Amino acid sequence: MNLPNLPNLPNLPNLPNQMFTLTHTDGAARRGVIHTAHGDIETPVFMPVGTQGVVKALTPRDLDEAGARIILGNTYHLYLRPGDDLIARRGGLHRFSGWSRPILTDSGGYQVFSLSDRRKVEEHGVQFRSHLDGSAHVLTPEKAVDIQANLGSDIAMVLDECPALPSTAEVIDQSLELTARWARRCRDRFLQIRESEPVRRSLGEGGAQFGIVQGGTFADLRRKSAELTVSIGFEGYAIGGLSVGEPNETMYQVVEQTAPLLPAAQPRYLMGVGTPLDIIEAVARGIDMFDCVLPTRNARNGQLLTSEGPVNIKNVQFSEDDGPADPACSCYTCRHFSRAYLRHLYMAGEMTGGTLNTLHNLTFYLDTMRRIREAIAFGRFEDFRQDFHRTFTRRALIS
Amino acid sequence: MNLPNLPNLPNLPNLPNQMFTLTHTDGAARRGVIHTAHGDIETPVFMPVGTQGVVKALTPRDLDEAGARIILGNTYHLYLRPGDDLIARRGGLHRFSGWSRPILTDSGGYQVFSLSDRRKVEEHGVQFRSHLDGSAHVLTPEKAVDIQANLGSDIAMVLDECPALPSTAEVIDQSLELTARWARRCRDRFLQIRESEPVRRSLGEGGAQFGIVQGGTFADLRRKSAELTVSIGFEGYAIGGLSVGEPNETMYQVVEQTAPLLPAAQPRYLMGVGTPLDIIEAVARGIDMFDCVLPTRNARNGQLLTSEGPVNIKNVQFSEDDGPADPACSCYTCRHFSRAYLRHLYMAGEMTGGTLNTLHNLTFYLDTMRRIREAIAFGRFEDFRQDFHRTFTRRALIS
Repeated sequence: MNLPNLPNLPNLPNLPNQMFTLTHTDGAARRGVIHTAHGDIETPVFMPVGTQGVVKALTPRDLDEAGARIILGNTYHLYLRPGDDLIARRGGLHRFSGWSRPILTDSGGYQVFSLSDRRKVEEHGVQFRSHLDGSAHVLTPEKAVDIQANLGSDIAMVLDECPALPSTAEVIDQSLELTARWARRCRDRFLQIRESEPVRRSLGEGGAQFGIVQGGTFADLRRKSAELTVSIGFEGYAIGGLSVGEPNETMYQVVEQTAPLLPAAQPRYLMGVGTPLDIIEAVARGIDMFDCVLPTRNARNGQLLTSEGPVNIKNVQFSEDDGPADPACSCYTCRHFSRAYLRHLYMAGEMTGGTLNTLHNLTFYLDTMRRIREAIAFGRFEDFRQDFHRTFTRRALIS
Repeated sequence: MNLPNLPNLPNLPNLPNQMFTLTHTDGAARRGVIHTAHGDIETPVFMPVGTQGVVKALTPRDLDEAGARIILGNTYHLYLRPGDDLIARRGGLHRFSGWSRPILTDSGGYQVFSLSDRRKVEEHGVQFRSHLDGSAHVLTPEKAVDIQANLGSDIAMVLDECPALPSTAEVIDQSLELTARWARRCRDRFLQIRESEPVRRSLGEGGAQFGIVQGGTFADLRRKSAELTVSIGFEGYAIGGLSVGEPNETMYQVVEQTAPLLPAAQPRYLMGVGTPLDIIEAVARGIDMFDCVLPTRNARNGQLLTSEGPVNIKNVQFSEDDGPADPACSCYTCRHFSRAYLRHLYMAGEMTGGTLNTLHNLTFYLDTMRRIREAIAFGRFEDFRQDFHRTFTRRALIS
C-alpha cells in the first residue's frame, strides 16, 4: 500500500495518547504498563531485536515462550528488503511475521548513519546507498514516518541524526537542532496520517510516536535537546546517541541527568542498551524500555548469559559438563540440554545451537526484567541491584 | 565409557529379537510395528537424518511435533566429533541429544567410502583420514559395532562395503562377499556385547542389529548377498547400495527382486531413499523403513515439498503470495506463515527460514507416511499410490 497524498492539515491538535500507566516507583526506578492496540507491556521491558522481520534463530512461539512482550523491527532493513509497501500489502509487519504482540520500529536513521561513506546529510533528509545493491535512496523525516506507518508499528520512532562520539559541543549542538527540526516534521506527518482514513487504521487506535533526545555527553546539550523534544509532545521519549563506545560511567551519568528532564507520566526508552548490568543501572536512573542485539548476537557466537555471568560455550572446559547452561533457569534449553551438548552443537556449526542459545539468552534477559519489576513493586530494587552486581560478573562479556 | 575387554564367547546363541509385528498387508505393501526399548514405531516409517546428533535446524520438540518417531544418527560424524566415548559418558546419544524416542545408527561405512581418495579397504577394515583434521583412523566391523554400542542406538547397522556404481559383476561379487564376512564379524561382536554386563544395558534390552544386502544392480548377486546375510540372522535387513545415481526404474526393479528374499517377519529398510515417489514405489514392493536427507537439506535450500509437488520458495512469483507453503498441511509453518514471508526469510538469509521450511518438509514426509499406513490398513494402497502420482509432480525436485 502506497500512502495516499495526504490532505494538508496544518495546526492539527497534538494530543499524545496517554499510553503509559505508572504503577510503582522505588527511588528513581519505575514500574508501569504501556498500553497498545496489540496488548499491554509491563515495564521496565527489554525488546528483542528483530532486524529483518524476525528475531534471528527464533520463531514467534519461541519468543513468546521466552517472555517477549514487544519486539523491535528495523525500518532501514525492512524498507530495503522486502520493502515496506510489500509488507503493507501483506497487512503489516505483525501479520507478515506472525508476531501478534506489540512492535516498536526504529526510524532507520541509526543504520543509515552507520553507512559512513555512503550517506550525505542535508536539511531535507539523508541520501544514502543501500548496503545490499548500492541503489540510491533518500530518507526524510516524513519518509521515516510513512515507512513505519506501512509496517504498522505500535510505537514509531522519529528520524534523528546520530553524530559520532566524541564530537565537539558545536557539532553536537547543530546536530541536536537538526534532530529537533526533524522531530517536528515527523510529528506533523504522524498526526496527518493519524487523522487521515484509512491509513490511520494501519497505525492502530493506540498508535504512538516517540521523540529522541540527543546531545552527546554534554549535560547542557542534553537538557536543550530534551526541552526541544518535549515541547513538541510525543507519547514517549527516547535517549539516543549512547552505547556507542563511551565508558559505562559516562553513559550512566548522561542517563541520570537526562531522565528527570522527561515527563514522568510517559515511557522512557534508552536506545541500544545493553548489558544486563547497564540495564539495571539505567532502571535505577528512571528508564523503562531497552533494546539490544547483545543477547541474540552473543548466543549465535556461543556466549550464554547466566545468573553467574557469561559462559563461553566453546571453551573446552564445557566439553563434558553435564550441567545446564544456567542452573537457575527453567527455559527449554536449560531443562533439556547440557553445556556439553550445546558446546558440541557450536563446534559442529549446527544452527540448532544458535536457536537453543538464543532461547536461553532471551529467557535470561526477560526473566531478569521480570525480577526487576518485582523488586520495584516490593520496594527492594536496591537490594536486587546489589545482589545482581555480586553474582553476575562482567568478565569476558562480548558487548 | 570405553568398552571393556570382552570375554571370548564363541558359539554364542544367535537368537534375533522378534522386534517386528506385521499387522496388515496390501499386495506387497506392509504395515506393522517395530518395538524398541525407546518405544514403538509404526511402519512404513521415514527416519529424519540427525547427522551430528541433531536434525539440522530443529529441536527435539520440533521433531516430535512433525511426527518423527525414530531418527537416524551418523556413526562416522559422531565418532569423530564429539566422540562416541564422550557421548557414552553422557549416558548415550538419547540423553546427550535430548531425543528420547528410538534412534537408528548407520555403521559409518557409507561416509568412509565417500572419502574416495582418503581411505583404503582391507580384509581387516577400512583405513581413512578424517575430513575434519586429516587424522588417521581404522574402522573395522567390530569397531563399528562398539561405536554404535557407545551411542546406545536402538537399531545398529553392520559395516558394509559400498562399491561405486556402475561396477562389474566381479567387483560387486567380491565386495558383497567381503560385506558378508564383515556382517558375520559384526554379529559376533554384537552378541558378545549383548551378553556381557554392564555394556549390554547401553544397547537396551531390545537392542537390534540389521544386516545389509548389497549386490549392485545384478539380480543374481542381490540374491547371493541376501542369502548370505539372512543366513547369519539379524533383527532386520537393509537394502544398501541404491539411490547412488542409478535410474529410478533400476532401483525399483532391484527392490522388487530383493525384498521377497528377506524374511517377511522382520523389518526391511531401504537405505538413503528417497523422494516421496521413491518411497511410495518402495512401499509398494515391500519396504518398511526409509531415511534421506532430502526433506531437511532441500528445506535449507529453499525447496518446500507440498501436496502439489515441490515449491522453490526463492522464486519471485512467491514474493507476494499470501498462501501457506502447502494448503493441505497443518504444521506450525503452514498455520502461521505465508509463502511471501518464507521467501523473505530465505532471501534475507535468516536461519529461522531454514527451521520453518524443515519443520514443514518433515511434516509433509511424515504425514505422507501416515497416509500410506492408513491406506494399507484399509486395503487402498494402490488407490493412494495412483492419486499421489497424479498430484505430486516430480518436476524440479532437487534430489
